[in-house]
Amino acid sequence: MNTLINGLPCDTISVHDRGLLYGDGVFRTLLLRHGKIQHWQRHYAKLFADCGTILLPCPAESLLYDELANLIQDAQDGVAKIIVTRGTSQRGYVPSPHPATTRILSLNPLPHYPEEFAKSGVRLHICQLRLAHQPRFAGAKHLNRLENVLASAEWDDPDIGEGLLLDEAGYVIEGVRSNIFVVKDGNLLTPDLSRCGVAGVQRERVIDWAGQQGIACKIMPISLDDLLRADEIFLVNSVIGLWPVREMPGYHCDHHPVAQSIRNWINHETD
Amino acid sequence: MNTLINGLPCDTISVHDRGLLYGDGVFRTLLLRHGKIQHWQRHYAKLFADCGTILLPCPAESLLYDELANLIQDAQDGVAKIIVTRGTSQRGYVPSPHPATTRILSLNPLPHYPEEFAKSGVRLHICQLRLAHQPRFAGAKHLNRLENVLASAEWDDPDIGEGLLLDEAGYVIEGVRSNIFVVKDGNLLTPDLSRCGVAGVQRERVIDWAGQQGIACKIMPISLDDLLRADEIFLVNSVIGLWPVREMPGYHCDHHPVAQSIRNWINHETD
Repeated sequence: MNTLINGLPCDTISVHDRGLLYGDGVFRTLLLRHGKIQHWQRHYAKLFADCGTILLPCPAESLLYDELANLIQDAQDGVAKIIVTRGTSQRGYVPSPHPATTRILSLNPLPHYPEEFAKSGVRLHICQLRLAHQPRFAGAKHLNRLENVLASAEWDDPDIGEGLLLDEAGYVIEGVRSNIFVVKDGNLLTPDLSRCGVAGVQRERVIDWAGQQGIACKIMPISLDDLLRADEIFLVNSVIGLWPVREMPGYHCDHHPVAQSIRNWINHETD
Repeated sequence: MNTLINGLPCDTISVHDRGLLYGDGVFRTLLLRHGKIQHWQRHYAKLFADCGTILLPCPAESLLYDELANLIQDAQDGVAKIIVTRGTSQRGYVPSPHPATTRILSLNPLPHYPEEFAKSGVRLHICQLRLAHQPRFAGAKHLNRLENVLASAEWDDPDIGEGLLLDEAGYVIEGVRSNIFVVKDGNLLTPDLSRCGVAGVQRERVIDWAGQQGIACKIMPISLDDLLRADEIFLVNSVIGLWPVREMPGYHCDHHPVAQSIRNWINHETD
């Protein structure tokens, strides 16, 4: 059984669960390598913060960790997902001040991506869909993900590794399932996510790593023009690690020395 | 059994359903009175259009209607809910071009609201949360409803009947669970919902009714100042029918002749 609900083997939830009714919950996607969940502390800290953002009590760390251990058992590699919802409801939108949350843990096989995505880089599609500004819960990994779904429907060319999402003002925000970094004149830049986007764990790790290396990493508004003038561009998330960007309309780059050195660090360091 | 999933009695769905994972679906809330679903044709037309907005094939009208009839059986009064999701997924955000949708039908008792909400009008809370502009799926009743949930958490005074939602630009858009109309100099005004908000069936009925009565109903941007200068304000949805607005910060109105005449029509006419 590869799914646990509130600690028990089960793969269905109530149709009255607010996760379904309203997308009223948050989630995390965690990499399992060599039998160990990567960066658990950081993921739990994000889950806790995201729950706070939507006024949801976060399950205790020890409870989730024990349930994850029970879920994983002897598995070596895979992708674990944790969803926390506000539980069932009969009261319309109004959230209970003391909800009985639903914890959904599932384990899936590692996805297979073409090897050249990591080695030579990916092509980006620039999505037509623009992300809306919702500062009230920007940055959080909540279950309202229709923007990502509809953006993902914009291309079906398997050579395109990721879609680039701009916001309603035209600024670069993220990939559909990843965060984005720019290398320019030896510095790192990554978009400000205070109005939209998801602030992932791998993004946070790269920012912290840059600080430790004495490399400036600026969190700032980044225009599409800034992107096209980049020395290098790369994407990160917890599952893919790091993919350099080889190509997008108006941009081509075959050499990614900075991105590859960060990728080596991502793939070999733990924290 | 008061829940049907894909036509069969059941009240759970897969944890892999995209309705849960991403809020990837749409819904409708329908009033059952005297054993009859009110305004079915309009609801189905909205469901069909909303499915189209998120690139989801809509179940056939006859299929849903037969399932609703089966759900309702001998019930006389209640609230029926139809949810259509993009079904299960193992592929991340990317939607299948030919999804096996999930149909979830449920029947609940009529909610009990204080009688004076309809007769004397309600107090409005002006929500701090501002609606984000997402023209790609504005107007549709989709399952990404965190804005409504968090706005609903802003007050707990039972004398407040509804929350007023403004958009990120400060314009009046809707109630948390209702659409809003303004009466001014004998005309009706209702907010433009092309950038955010849900365009409900009752709103559409009132707009059509006004046209038949030779009353101008303008769909336009409405500022909070416009609202405070209104002769009357009222809220509509399929379940409450119509509630006049008696009070909000900066506004008080005890006489609602236009709203009450429309309420009489709403409560006695069918289409």
